[in-house]
Amino acid sequence: MEEKGLIQIYTGDGKGKTTASIGQAIRARGHKFKVCFVYFFKNLKDFSYGEVEILKGLGIEIVNFVPQHPHFYKNIPPEGIREKCMTAIESIKEIFEKNYDMVILDEILIALRDGFLKEKEILQLLEKKPESLEIILTGRGATKKIIERADLVTEMKKIKHPFNQGVKERRGIEY
Amino acid sequence: MEEKGLIQIYTGDGKGKTTASIGQAIRARGHKFKVCFVYFFKNLKDFSYGEVEILKGLGIEIVNFVPQHPHFYKNIPPEGIREKCMTAIESIKEIFEKNYDMVILDEILIALRDGFLKEKEILQLLEKKPESLEIILTGRGATKKIIERADLVTEMKKIKHPFNQGVKERRGIEY
Repeated sequence: MEEKGLIQIYTGDGKGKTTASIGQAIRARGHKFKVCFVYFFKNLKDFSYGEVEILKGLGIEIVNFVPQHPHFYKNIPPEGIREKCMTAIESIKEIFEKNYDMVILDEILIALRDGFLKEKEILQLLEKKPESLEIILTGRGATKKIIERADLVTEMKKIKHPFNQGVKERRGIEY
Repeated sequence: MEEKGLIQIYTGDGKGKTTASIGQAIRARGHKFKVCFVYFFKNLKDFSYGEVEILKGLGIEIVNFVPQHPHFYKNIPPEGIREKCMTAIESIKEIFEKNYDMVILDEILIALRDGFLKEKEILQLLEKKPESLEIILTGRGATKKIIERADLVTEMKKIKHPFNQGVKERRGIEY
């Protein structure tokens, strides 16, 4: 990317945060940007997300941290999660050094919301952003300070969602 | 798609509406869904949108209606636009018959907001939706009745946008 990279946030309770990040990765890749897509709390090994093979096939690097959120995996002790999230932060700092044009940190804000990461740890991570890198953070729970630090923030606001009508997660739509 | 298709809307003044639709198309395509991406008001011929070649390369059908919005092309008479939008509606009805699993109508709601289409014309179009088809409408200006008709509605709300700080549209990010 030839210009200054910004910090984008997709937050809120509506559908479209991860989905918009995928779109952003595709658009950037279409202009030959070097893109790394970092997933938090997604079990890519045991669950087939529609986008993953396509992103890989397009040369987008996929990284998968803390695949099991204790909310969904009741046998996982929450104590270990904090440690894994902190290790992830260190790995992301290394990713920042790898000359990407865009790094997506999908659901990293959930780690903050659920107390596995502290606000200052995310702010410190953002301090390490190279000038030209575009960073996208997603997840419910963006705090005021993180919003202040970001350049572009969209709240995905749920106006209507079929989960509320009992519709289950749908293949090709939610994953 | 094996189940009932829904009507989704991405509306609001924030970034992420078209971007989320691209992500949605990718995710669906990853599960081998048949997807058609219909663009309104985008000049795909003269302008290089990052996502278009990738979507095509993945076997997603791209359709481009009313490429010039009179807001951006001052020499285009607005009267012709209404006619073109109505022709587009007829073509979309034919697209609905083509056995797609997902049809994205990107920025169709702008045609409504700007008076080129009437609310009842869009509602009548939605009546033609085959049971199994998932439809995604994007653009500012979703009306109450259209929201009522939809199953899943997200408002992309602008919390912060760099255009307000004088940042211009950026390659790989906005297009």
